[in-house]
Amino acid sequence: MIQTDIIIIGAGPTGLFAVFEAGLLKLRCHIIDALPQPGGQLTELYPKKPIFDIPGYPSVGAGELIDNLMEQIKQFEPGFTLSEQATTIDKQEDGSFIVTTNRGTQIQGKAVAIAGGLGSFEPRKPVIDNIAYFEEKGVEYFVRDPEMFRDKKIVIAGGGDSALDWSIFLAEVAADVTLIHRRNEFRGALDSVDKVIELKKSGKINLITPAEIVGIKGEDKVEGLMIEKEGESFEIETDYFIPLFGLSPKLGPIANWGLEIEKNAIKVNNGLDYQTNIEGIYAIGDVNTYPGKLKLILCGFHEATLMCQSVYNRLNPGKKFVLKYTTVSGVDGFDGTRKEAEKAVVKAID
Amino acid sequence: MIQTDIIIIGAGPTGLFAVFEAGLLKLRCHIIDALPQPGGQLTELYPKKPIFDIPGYPSVGAGELIDNLMEQIKQFEPGFTLSEQATTIDKQEDGSFIVTTNRGTQIQGKAVAIAGGLGSFEPRKPVIDNIAYFEEKGVEYFVRDPEMFRDKKIVIAGGGDSALDWSIFLAEVAADVTLIHRRNEFRGALDSVDKVIELKKSGKINLITPAEIVGIKGEDKVEGLMIEKEGESFEIETDYFIPLFGLSPKLGPIANWGLEIEKNAIKVNNGLDYQTNIEGIYAIGDVNTYPGKLKLILCGFHEATLMCQSVYNRLNPGKKFVLKYTTVSGVDGFDGTRKEAEKAVVKAID
Ligand SMILES: Cc1cc2nc3c(=O)[nH]c(=O)nc-3n(C[C@H](O)[C@H](O)[C@H](O)COP(=O)(O)OP(=O)(O)OC[C@H]3O[C@@H](n4cnc5c(N)ncnc54)[C@H](O)[C@@H]3O)c2cc1C
Ligand SMILES: Cc1cc2nc3c(=O)[nH]c(=O)nc-3n(C[C@H](O)[C@H](O)[C@H](O)COP(=O)(O)OP(=O)(O)OC[C@H]3O[C@@H](n4cnc5c(N)ncnc54)[C@H](O)[C@@H]3O)c2cc1C
Repeated sequence: MIQTDIIIIGAGPTGLFAVFEAGLLKLRCHIIDALPQPGGQLTELYPKKPIFDIPGYPSVGAGELIDNLMEQIKQFEPGFTLSEQATTIDKQEDGSFIVTTNRGTQIQGKAVAIAGGLGSFEPRKPVIDNIAYFEEKGVEYFVRDPEMFRDKKIVIAGGGDSALDWSIFLAEVAADVTLIHRRNEFRGALDSVDKVIELKKSGKINLITPAEIVGIKGEDKVEGLMIEKEGESFEIETDYFIPLFGLSPKLGPIANWGLEIEKNAIKVNNGLDYQTNIEGIYAIGDVNTYPGKLKLILCGFHEATLMCQSVYNRLNPGKKFVLKYTTVSGVDGFDGTRKEAEKAVVKAID
Repeated sequence: MIQTDIIIIGAGPTGLFAVFEAGLLKLRCHIIDALPQPGGQLTELYPKKPIFDIPGYPSVGAGELIDNLMEQIKQFEPGFTLSEQATTIDKQEDGSFIVTTNRGTQIQGKAVAIAGGLGSFEPRKPVIDNIAYFEEKGVEYFVRDPEMFRDKKIVIAGGGDSALDWSIFLAEVAADVTLIHRRNEFRGALDSVDKVIELKKSGKINLITPAEIVGIKGEDKVEGLMIEKEGESFEIETDYFIPLFGLSPKLGPIANWGLEIEKNAIKVNNGLDYQTNIEGIYAIGDVNTYPGKLKLILCGFHEATLMCQSVYNRLNPGKKFVLKYTTVSGVDGFDGTRKEAEKAVVKAID
């Protein structure tokens, strides 16, 4: 079983920054996220868009902000369990918690910070009778690891940025990429659309529009798809079918953990430390609610910081906490690195 | 009288970021600070040092962070009254406030945000009998405007970064720069110390150490200084005397405004909106206190944001507030500029 100080559920900006604040207090973190990559809404929903209200950044790309946060926390060596959903939580007699994922991974920690945003992202699935049977047998709702598609035949379905961008990316990896959309029109960043047009012209992407996938063929795994295009039906061969119809967040299993829920969010004590009604379980970022709550990234940063302080105080009862400025005390990573300001010199001049 | 929506006392990072959040809500701000430049502790105490705990910045220079905040807020055209201390506040019958400075400047606003940090910075003054008489007559505790020293003779006293850095800077501006310190040793950034040594060698800075200034000569204005060096006394001529012995923050007049004070800070309702015991007066950043308070820059950003929301709701009773993401809605500056994410295109491919 994985052991840590703080189990963080959710690798959005709030969960990531919590690792940093915990690290300053010498607390280790392990993060679970249902998505294959860190970044929460920012990487999943708007990675290339600019954000204008991150303090100190007149403008920063959402993906860039996540990259920076990952760089900022790496010295504190967070553990990651990605592509798994936290499904149950059990409080132990010693006050610790065990969180178990849908794949059976177990993590034990002294405190839990739920930074689950709007919930775990779940793919919108196309309505095809036998699709559930083919999940993990050739049907993939996320591109977790592009390498699994190397030299394979793949079909991507969808008309938005994800469908466009993965078609472009995988055109260099897969043996054969087909993009299917129920309209002729695509909606995405201008350069993505242009790039797809170009790849289509050079024969690197096959385009079938307006068309719909109405069935999946195969024995133990996907072998082909049944397509309907303008009244005609036909089949194409493929190794993988990747429907990219967007993700919608669902609070999901967290809703059944005995936490006070209001407006699809977890009620916390914002007058102190963002703790929930269960001692030792905190909720920070978009997932929590309190009077005056704003679902903004910068608010999650503050909440994560006060949460870490509270965990520290719980784990070190009676110990007087003295706030240290990073500028003055530097930052000692768990990986042995140290960041510090240049020291002033004392030097005689005569 | 200057009119605004929110009067902000303190141009530290908290006060500056408040301008941005207010701007998003179409509220205008006017900032008062006792210091000659914005940035609070960051520009006054550690402008060249790195900060490691600003979310999304693995490292950022304190001065650089302030520059970025100034850039971020400029579209919202904040008013600035610098080098003046807010001394009194008067609540008007219509619920607005008038804040008056030590120089008599008056600002009227619908709400007040005290972002006063540890208080207004006051210079540590050398113990010289008649120094008070010469203030604003050649004795300057801050370098407000370097140009006032062009082609003048100046004497700087002190042994730290400010004394070193201003000696270096003004060596290019003034006719003659003398640096006096009571020891031979200086304490500062290595490159500043080295630069002073170099300027001394090339005759651009006169150095008198170990020495003390014991008197000021002049009729209506500073004309010379009396120096004691290793038992010897002598006089030197100068137009200006700039003692840079550091600044210490004093809560000062704010302490007498009828606000609840605890541990030298203003008590606020952190469970809601960081309002003080006087409706319409908020306290944000280092200047406030509440259970679990941490005097960190990132906390001030959050507090400023919730404060602005609260002011907005007070000024627009009954109006339902809908949070807009900057990424989605863009940012419309009061100066007519607009920042926005590139729009997705809808384009046919066939
Ligand atoms: C288009 C758009 C534009 C936006 N623009 C701005 C803006 O300009 N400024 C701003 O401040 N905010 C903006 N936001 C909001 C911002 O993205 C959120 O406030 C922010 O993402 C919240 O961060 P978080 O870490 O709390 O949660 P999230 O980013 O939502 O991350 C939560 C993570 O938790 C995971 N998770 C949840 N439950 C589980 C579980 N049971 N098991 C495993 N994993 C789980 C999810 O998969 C997700 O990755 C915008 C949002 C959108 C959609
Ligand atoms: C050496 C050092 C290192 C630090 N390192 C870090 C760090 O690594 N991370 C971190 O988060 N924090 C750090 N801090 C703390 C950080 O600087 C403060 O939290 C931050 O400056 C608070 O911002 P503020 O805007 O609330 O107040 P301040 O920056 O203190 O600004 C308040 C301003 O209000 C003005 N003012 C006050 N009263 C009046 C009045 N009556 N009239 C007019 N003006 C007035 C003052 O002149 C001042 O400019 C450090 C502090 C120091 C000294």
